[in-house]
Amino acid sequence: MNTASKIMARTLKLALIQMEVSAVKAENLMRAMSLVGEAKKQNADVVVLPECFNSPYGTKHFEPNAEEVPTGQSCTSLSDAAKTNKLHLIGGSIPERLVDNGTAKLFNTSTVWSPEGTLMAKHQKVHLFDIDIPGKITFKESETLSPGRGLTTFDIGSWKVGLGICYDLRFNEMATIYRKMGCSLLLYPGAFNMTTGPLHWELLIRARAVDTQCYVAAIAPARTKGAGYQSYGNSMLVDPWGKILCRADADEEIIYADIDLSTVEEFRQQIPVYSQRRTDLYDTVEK
Amino acid sequence: MNTASKIMARTLKLALIQMEVSAVKAENLMRAMSLVGEAKKQNADVVVLPECFNSPYGTKHFEPNAEEVPTGQSCTSLSDAAKTNKLHLIGGSIPERLVDNGTAKLFNTSTVWSPEGTLMAKHQKVHLFDIDIPGKITFKESETLSPGRGLTTFDIGSWKVGLGICYDLRFNEMATIYRKMGCSLLLYPGAFNMTTGPLHWELLIRARAVDTQCYVAAIAPARTKGAGYQSYGNSMLVDPWGKILCRADADEEIIYADIDLSTVEEFRQQIPVYSQRRTDLYDTVEK
Repeated sequence: MNTASKIMARTLKLALIQMEVSAVKAENLMRAMSLVGEAKKQNADVVVLPECFNSPYGTKHFEPNAEEVPTGQSCTSLSDAAKTNKLHLIGGSIPERLVDNGTAKLFNTSTVWSPEGTLMAKHQKVHLFDIDIPGKITFKESETLSPGRGLTTFDIGSWKVGLGICYDLRFNEMATIYRKMGCSLLLYPGAFNMTTGPLHWELLIRARAVDTQCYVAAIAPARTKGAGYQSYGNSMLVDPWGKILCRADADEEIIYADIDLSTVEEFRQQIPVYSQRRTDLYDTVEK
Repeated sequence: MNTASKIMARTLKLALIQMEVSAVKAENLMRAMSLVGEAKKQNADVVVLPECFNSPYGTKHFEPNAEEVPTGQSCTSLSDAAKTNKLHLIGGSIPERLVDNGTAKLFNTSTVWSPEGTLMAKHQKVHLFDIDIPGKITFKESETLSPGRGLTTFDIGSWKVGLGICYDLRFNEMATIYRKMGCSLLLYPGAFNMTTGPLHWELLIRARAVDTQCYVAAIAPARTKGAGYQSYGNSMLVDPWGKILCRADADEEIIYADIDLSTVEEFRQQIPVYSQRRTDLYDTVEK
């Protein structure tokens, strides 16, 4: 896209990178940059990396891999990749270190980069993944991470995009607020596991799409043999009607699909649930 | 159940009656009563009839089949059936005529009957079904019906039940309010059609279940050859985890499943999304 067409863009080609993540950060950054270049060759306009693309997912890995945003090594690589390839790049997420009132805190943070390489937005995961399914999976992100303090949107062409990370996907009110803010595309870098993935990953992605009448993409790391946390994979992009446009399996893969604002408008016109909401009886409010 | 156990009941046997509906009201009422008797023989505690069980679904059928609640013929039959069989009976829905400020209005109304035959609650469909999918289906309930003015819950044993009708199912904020009110079971008599049914019926039922961590049942009329409105059928009961416990096809059938509050509590404890909602950032409010 040139600048003029980008401002007005009603169609976009998305690339979702279901990337293999190792324990070596430099290796992950090189791999990510190479895959972004590959997506560029396929003419992608918007490229999305998975949650924790620069280091393994797990509470013990967050601190040693944490960086400042946007000055750290991972952000520098992301900025370069966006600029070199002249595309919008959503940097999945990385562990972020932020000094807040003299105290260093860690966040699970997604950064968004313009085709000029500038930081357009950052989202700190607002719902921390604390669950306990006995005999299957127990996880407490809150042992090491702090929760984000706000919701995050940004614009690409004619699209307003709402951003969430993984467990944020379970919270329909957050998606409803994004619809109220005018979003037509929701992006969730996320790593569900082999228990919650088969149970709820596809259902939640499709439900958020149909309820908000938005395109919804969820972008997972590939499943890695021997990793402490087994990612479900199954990255996918779903259209507003709930139809799956492209879907990965468990291995590393880039999947692509075109999105079109006309499809959003068509559904919203034909089944106009947003204007039919009974806001005299209930409403979802932002605080 | 005797009265003592009923008050405490944490498990219930539900019967969903996917009933064939004809153009003859007296025939429909007799058929419904007979099917409720059959469900009683299977020891059902709670029996649910489909939307518009007493007359065909369609704007031209609402006025000629409308009755006062609870004095009309259909309510009398429902009260008798609940009392005779000593069970809770949710009377799907019927077209209701109600004089409001001197003006006769029609509603799509569900009535709830105690084992003593008393009216426990009534729900008037709050979201009217007005959609326009060119070449597939155009429908405007609002041409003849008025929208309900409130949400509806009632109690059976230890269960708080939230009630909606058909198109109400598309509105996740209504289900969120029911969860906030303390519901563990949501019932949606509803007649999706051959366009919206394959697209969204199962997805919406399962999404409401997982998002609210409630059991959710949706109860449709059977598909009738030659009827002006072709019901999708596919009545089903879904557990809080999103698992389909029982499901009908297109024909008349009673489907059964047991529900257990322990399953609700287990999911809510293991993945505690309700307490993890970021009500400092957003909330769903009742007005």
